[in-house]
Amino acid sequence: MSQNPNIRHALTVKRADDFAQWYQEVIAEAGMAEESGVRGCMVIKPWGYGIWERIQQVMDARIKEAGVENCYFPLFIPLSYFAKEAEHVEGFAKEMAVVTHHRLIGDGKGGLVPDPEAKLEEPLIVRPTSETVIGAAMARWVQSWRDLPLLTNQWANVVRWEMRTRMFLRTSEFLWQEGHTAHADRADAVAETLRALEMYRSFAEDVLAMPVIAGEKPENERFPGAVATYSIEAMMQDGKALQAGTSHYLGTGFAEAAGIRYQDKEGSQALCHTTSWGVSTRLIGGVIMTHGDDDGLRVPPAIAPQQVVILPMLRDTPEDEALLAYCEELRREIAGKSALGEKVRVLLDKRPGKATQKRWAWVKKGVPLILEIGGRDAAGGQVSVVRRDRLWREDGKVNFTGMARADFVAGVAAELEDVQRSLHGEALARRDAQIVRGITSLEALAAYFEGEKYPGWVECGWSRPGGAALDEVVAKLKALKLTIRNTPLGEAKPEGACLFTGAPAVETIYVARAY
Amino acid sequence: MSQNPNIRHALTVKRADDFAQWYQEVIAEAGMAEESGVRGCMVIKPWGYGIWERIQQVMDARIKEAGVENCYFPLFIPLSYFAKEAEHVEGFAKEMAVVTHHRLIGDGKGGLVPDPEAKLEEPLIVRPTSETVIGAAMARWVQSWRDLPLLTNQWANVVRWEMRTRMFLRTSEFLWQEGHTAHADRADAVAETLRALEMYRSFAEDVLAMPVIAGEKPENERFPGAVATYSIEAMMQDGKALQAGTSHYLGTGFAEAAGIRYQDKEGSQALCHTTSWGVSTRLIGGVIMTHGDDDGLRVPPAIAPQQVVILPMLRDTPEDEALLAYCEELRREIAGKSALGEKVRVLLDKRPGKATQKRWAWVKKGVPLILEIGGRDAAGGQVSVVRRDRLWREDGKVNFTGMARADFVAGVAAELEDVQRSLHGEALARRDAQIVRGITSLEALAAYFEGEKYPGWVECGWSRPGGAALDEVVAKLKALKLTIRNTPLGEAKPEGACLFTGAPAVETIYVARAY
Repeated sequence: MSQNPNIRHALTVKRADDFAQWYQEVIAEAGMAEESGVRGCMVIKPWGYGIWERIQQVMDARIKEAGVENCYFPLFIPLSYFAKEAEHVEGFAKEMAVVTHHRLIGDGKGGLVPDPEAKLEEPLIVRPTSETVIGAAMARWVQSWRDLPLLTNQWANVVRWEMRTRMFLRTSEFLWQEGHTAHADRADAVAETLRALEMYRSFAEDVLAMPVIAGEKPENERFPGAVATYSIEAMMQDGKALQAGTSHYLGTGFAEAAGIRYQDKEGSQALCHTTSWGVSTRLIGGVIMTHGDDDGLRVPPAIAPQQVVILPMLRDTPEDEALLAYCEELRREIAGKSALGEKVRVLLDKRPGKATQKRWAWVKKGVPLILEIGGRDAAGGQVSVVRRDRLWREDGKVNFTGMARADFVAGVAAELEDVQRSLHGEALARRDAQIVRGITSLEALAAYFEGEKYPGWVECGWSRPGGAALDEVVAKLKALKLTIRNTPLGEAKPEGACLFTGAPAVETIYVARAY
Repeated sequence: MSQNPNIRHALTVKRADDFAQWYQEVIAEAGMAEESGVRGCMVIKPWGYGIWERIQQVMDARIKEAGVENCYFPLFIPLSYFAKEAEHVEGFAKEMAVVTHHRLIGDGKGGLVPDPEAKLEEPLIVRPTSETVIGAAMARWVQSWRDLPLLTNQWANVVRWEMRTRMFLRTSEFLWQEGHTAHADRADAVAETLRALEMYRSFAEDVLAMPVIAGEKPENERFPGAVATYSIEAMMQDGKALQAGTSHYLGTGFAEAAGIRYQDKEGSQALCHTTSWGVSTRLIGGVIMTHGDDDGLRVPPAIAPQQVVILPMLRDTPEDEALLAYCEELRREIAGKSALGEKVRVLLDKRPGKATQKRWAWVKKGVPLILEIGGRDAAGGQVSVVRRDRLWREDGKVNFTGMARADFVAGVAAELEDVQRSLHGEALARRDAQIVRGITSLEALAAYFEGEKYPGWVECGWSRPGGAALDEVVAKLKALKLTIRNTPLGEAKPEGACLFTGAPAVETIYVARAY
């Protein structure tokens, strides 16, 4: 985090001073979201929603490529569906929005109240996930082995009543996708669980430029009822972990509860093995806390609603016309180029207002490349450009570079791809520098995490305790406000002992404070 | 509607026998949607949702092209927002889903009930539209003339409690887009209202191949509180009208209620003029009733999730491998072509099952081109193809044509474009043939619409009565189960008298029974 005293940053709060406050300022100043007046629900503004649309578009293409088909299931779920689940699933969460009436009526005092005549016989729940209704649909749709695998996905809004909310990270209503699949056997279902996990891992790395560790969650962090839960875990700039996506192998338990059975090739009935996997608008929170700096957001080009913004330095004089014509021609040339496998997204910002004011608005939004074009540039066939990820010079000036327009256009794709790579490289170097190894006792762990700050993650050996032994570990960690994040996939068995039990370690885990 | 006795159609119900039942069968057999177990809410299955995704994608590009930005607003709206509206707006609908609790609790008998401790202080309404919250946001976002026009759009689910529901046409929950814009003056707002209307008109015609009449609704059919409401009206095959999209000029009334004010260039405060416009999953119902036939759905290529399906005639023999390789090569060649401005969407259907069974499944889904490839075709470099819109020969055989593979690939784009054009042409000819002119008395109108069937629309003169005179007309029409659809835009003032008042006609209207 830059400390150059020459630089006057665009935000009033620095990451180093108050990370939570800084996070709110980034969101407000970038025009990404705001409070809605409805408890725990946000308004997602164009720049925030544009990033979500980009995430959806790229992720959806990868989901479809895997043969998964999108459906849409109802917003409301009858209460009785949950009664069954609550019985079977320990840890079932009951904080949900409950619909009890279907009509309003005047209260005789100029206001409205729920009409007592229009009380529902059975309350409806606003879906916290569509797990139960999708299970019921799968039971209808699967008859024989020929129907398997059944691969479905839904993009939707869901609601979980949250007491403490934070924009993008934890809101009562959020947007997500939930994949649900049914398979003939364990091997096929586990393969799908890991395919989804790998899809999330590569999406986070390649598209969000956000380094993640893909691995299995410990038993105590499993999705209630799952046989195995996998996650991708990202490190935020304050050293905390963010669970950015999960994939669950559910065994046959959910299929049994929902009645998802098939006739196999031999003619006998068998239970399906099911999976589920999801990511949400939480990813946007991860992008902010991975790439944002003291000047606002920095958006990786792959998900930037605009990758290049052109700011003409208008002066309200007759020369503006020629300047605008030059900029429009430049825009067309850039829009004709492709970067990261797509046409370059470029905006010519002709709105009224001073160019410098507009520049800072775009800096705070984090657009990867900003061009400022004055009359002299237009006359000389030049452009003046700054990369958002290299905003400042040592002397505290904004790092604009002049170059021939043709050179800029010829190099714009390479430049955007370099921004994408650089953001990932920067985040990866920071993450790796903030993972500590060699802590071998609970006392040393407590000492490392002492104080208000969470300097990063601890990587240590794990003997995979279960039952009461695990509960004890979890309780000790909880007292330190720490959690076990996951066991990275594909790592060799570590040397040495488990930090918590002293028994020989069988795998590696990450310990961190988490969002 | 074909009456050839040689033909054995794929559906059990014919349009001519029971249109409503036929509609349900198309949806079920095409795998578009099904009942969800939640009153009035449907499950949209992959083929139905795929069509919606196509509609969204093409419409969204047109919305963005017009400079409108997407946002996302909360699902829940505090009750108090509606109390204000109910006071100001006559005809305010009160059938809404009301959330009163935020937690469930065990009832001690193994069931769950809303937790009385978790009753909300103020009930929340599941949005029937986001009009009120968007208005509140606009009031925050608009300060000066520089912020105008403010052009926003939302893609979302909304809920209106419906007593009688029909899939896609009228469901309690449905998916839609709602555009909301704020402008400095009347002229700009009216221009935006008409731009959205024209966007809908051309979308319906070019993309859905669904002929529509774009016009202004009569006063009694205006959106409550609007100054003017415009619609696109399509004729279904049973002669009824479907309102397929609306665009409203709201004047300054909504801006006043929400406090959307701006400082003009002279420094004084002024109210904005606002608009709103929307289309929904109802469009899919329109597509079914415009293009479906007695063999199921026919999807216009522009919105078909798959435009070409290849069915290899597998025999479970070693020759299958060569056949599949041939089909895969064919698929690749077709996928490399572009039609209607996009890459051709082609599927090689390798699932187990007999090719004829699979053929009829695709016929009922309405995929524009179906290829059946046998071993002999593969050996001879041939394909066998049928157009869904020209399915039958006179002799009752399916209208397959053999041709060289290279010729098919070279012509696939032209063929798809011809299907798109043909479907539109067929629907247009039918619509125009079912519009009757020259009816000049209420008695003749009643006689024309006598009986159970609605042969089409009546075009007649209209003197634009208001107040009690209009109420009287509406009541008379209601007794005949008829409504005024709209006044087409851009038509010359008609000759003659108003059918209802006898006064000189000032405009043309369409009278029809409607969905």
